[in-house]
Amino acid sequence: MTDSAASPAPADPFFTIGTRLDDRAGRTGTIHTPHGDITTPSFVAVGTKATVKAVLPESMRDLGAQSLLANAYHLYLQPGPDIVDEAGGLGRFMNWDGPTFTDSGGFQVMSLGVGFKKVLAMEAVGVRSDDVIAKGKERLATVDEDGVTFKSHLDGSRHRFTPEVSMGIQHQLGADIIFAFDELTTLMNTREYQERSVERTQAWAVRCIAEHEKLTAQRAHKPYQALFGVVQGAQYEDLRRQACRGLESIVGETGRGFDGYGIGGALEKQNLGTIVGWCTDELPEHKPRHLLGISEPDDFFVAVENGIDTFDCVNPSRVARNAAIYHPDGRFNINTSRFRRDFTPIDDECDCYTCRHYTRAYIHHLFKAKEMLASTLCTIHNERFTVRLVDDIRRSIDSGDYDAFKDETLGRFYR
Amino acid sequence: MTDSAASPAPADPFFTIGTRLDDRAGRTGTIHTPHGDITTPSFVAVGTKATVKAVLPESMRDLGAQSLLANAYHLYLQPGPDIVDEAGGLGRFMNWDGPTFTDSGGFQVMSLGVGFKKVLAMEAVGVRSDDVIAKGKERLATVDEDGVTFKSHLDGSRHRFTPEVSMGIQHQLGADIIFAFDELTTLMNTREYQERSVERTQAWAVRCIAEHEKLTAQRAHKPYQALFGVVQGAQYEDLRRQACRGLESIVGETGRGFDGYGIGGALEKQNLGTIVGWCTDELPEHKPRHLLGISEPDDFFVAVENGIDTFDCVNPSRVARNAAIYHPDGRFNINTSRFRRDFTPIDDECDCYTCRHYTRAYIHHLFKAKEMLASTLCTIHNERFTVRLVDDIRRSIDSGDYDAFKDETLGRFYR
Repeated sequence: MTDSAASPAPADPFFTIGTRLDDRAGRTGTIHTPHGDITTPSFVAVGTKATVKAVLPESMRDLGAQSLLANAYHLYLQPGPDIVDEAGGLGRFMNWDGPTFTDSGGFQVMSLGVGFKKVLAMEAVGVRSDDVIAKGKERLATVDEDGVTFKSHLDGSRHRFTPEVSMGIQHQLGADIIFAFDELTTLMNTREYQERSVERTQAWAVRCIAEHEKLTAQRAHKPYQALFGVVQGAQYEDLRRQACRGLESIVGETGRGFDGYGIGGALEKQNLGTIVGWCTDELPEHKPRHLLGISEPDDFFVAVENGIDTFDCVNPSRVARNAAIYHPDGRFNINTSRFRRDFTPIDDECDCYTCRHYTRAYIHHLFKAKEMLASTLCTIHNERFTVRLVDDIRRSIDSGDYDAFKDETLGRFYR
Repeated sequence: MTDSAASPAPADPFFTIGTRLDDRAGRTGTIHTPHGDITTPSFVAVGTKATVKAVLPESMRDLGAQSLLANAYHLYLQPGPDIVDEAGGLGRFMNWDGPTFTDSGGFQVMSLGVGFKKVLAMEAVGVRSDDVIAKGKERLATVDEDGVTFKSHLDGSRHRFTPEVSMGIQHQLGADIIFAFDELTTLMNTREYQERSVERTQAWAVRCIAEHEKLTAQRAHKPYQALFGVVQGAQYEDLRRQACRGLESIVGETGRGFDGYGIGGALEKQNLGTIVGWCTDELPEHKPRHLLGISEPDDFFVAVENGIDTFDCVNPSRVARNAAIYHPDGRFNINTSRFRRDFTPIDDECDCYTCRHYTRAYIHHLFKAKEMLASTLCTIHNERFTVRLVDDIRRSIDSGDYDAFKDETLGRFYR
């Protein structure tokens, strides 16, 4: 199969900056990919296994999603990256003609399907020692200097990811934006371990760039894939700054270096802005910055004003399947009996498909009746809420109304 | 809430006949409902709980579904017919502006969620005595002259349906075409029981018409709901003919009688045409005839040439959720490994959304990954296959090519 967007050369520039947020690090911008532009700040919707769960891609397009992110670990296990490659790449495989991202699989091979929020909270992941992240009593993933050996959460079979393996998988998946293979640490790791881990992630980043350049040359008939480095360093300012400078120093044989950066790892909500601020202070201004796994309204504002351009998170769709609804006045659960006879939309100000065509009573009924359409309709609403919120942050920066918009939005949502 | 289609008067005529199938009972026609016309023969897609499982109503419209059928028993238990009524009726509740049907709940209260095919096969329903249809060891439904007492399959609570209760529920649900409350029998019932049952269903039909006329007058601000009588009589020619004549003789106070007829009950596949033929031979030609719970290609042809106008069945969507695919060359299961790398559509001649945008490899992946979109995409395809097949039968009657189309279609499907 061919891809009409095929081009060996990266867009130049890959990222253009629009409006700056006065004296803060926030900015609007545009990321140029072979499958279209992404105006930023923007929320990237998650379709882990090459589908946004319960929703047609046309519905994602209609609700304003600009780009989708799938997961290298999951697609490596099923159906296998060679099949996605043969299908013409991730976007063609899943009937999405816009920009796509894949994450490196690093997070998943180490957490094995445990969600980001649980890792943040730490209780869910029993850290057995500085060298092992284990779940329950069984040792599931082992990190060494060369890579990670892990067991599949599907069938227990043993696999090994290295920086080269992750790059190979992500090139086969063919997303427009891919991520370097990094080591996930947690807030429970020691300072000494975090230091070793930042060094290891730096060494892996060097190998990722080298492998990426090799594969890009080999697959010059394919659309250019932009590679983002991933900043770790947990809650330590010196490690975060060291990690950023380290990634920036890697330029590879082409001299291009990373096309952008992802900020990952252990982040406590109350330190989010501070930690992001250290990173964006160090990172080159002309490259986009992605914050991994964040989607709460207050976090968006804190992150954007500290210089984040894109976000991804499974939460809007995950909580939708459990009947949790995002609303300008806060989150609520539509499963409760007070909605049985509520013939109003979820949000009468919302422009999404669900709010234009269905009542709370109908959606409540679908959950009670265990009908799949419940997940479909609530996912559409929550994704629209999230995409629109970040879009509105972008517009408020462009129009100079950022602070007023922030106060009004957060005042309503968390009142 | 108001319904712009509101009109106290039935369409006159309710049904118009188009082309006749030479000397056989088959014909094309048009059913006129307050929410639009149904050109017949036509397949009515099933949305049991006010949703076609896993599919948006716009997808059903796009794939050519003219009308949808929901179930009175299920909607009575959840959310309750009063809520559907307050929402503006079934169509408005579920965002479907075309014609709607509800069945009477008679089948479900007696089989309690056991599907029609299982009842046909009989093994699934343990008939304990002539007076009780029970499931397993527990007595779940008891039939007396006045109605049926049964336990909810959801929570075991006791409920009672009578002809009046069923009419009340169906008037609250507000579908364009509703069915009289009948007694379900099985091929394992004795001849004597079938005789008593036909008499009972006849007595219930009289009560249904009376209650229907009362409710129609009380709810004259609502769109007219057409009432279909249901023919029982199992495999006995005299009972089937007696049942038809009995139903036809009921004209009520208005003199209108039933607007159409449903043919239900125990039917062995090899006798389908014969039994349908007895019924349509007796039934008035100018009223539409619905065959309940049928969707296999050969059954469509046999039924249409014996005078059936409409069909409904859960099978196209039910089997889709289990990865069974209808194809002109027969049914196959897309879960098998030979489709892992099959980058062709399910059916390269099919015009459905799924076949235009997705490969077998992708759909195979979705099933392996346990993604809901698998059900969505396969349901769209199977419903399109079924709707189009009956539409093509209609066109073949109009164009005079019925027999050639039948031979070609069945020759391919069952080769």
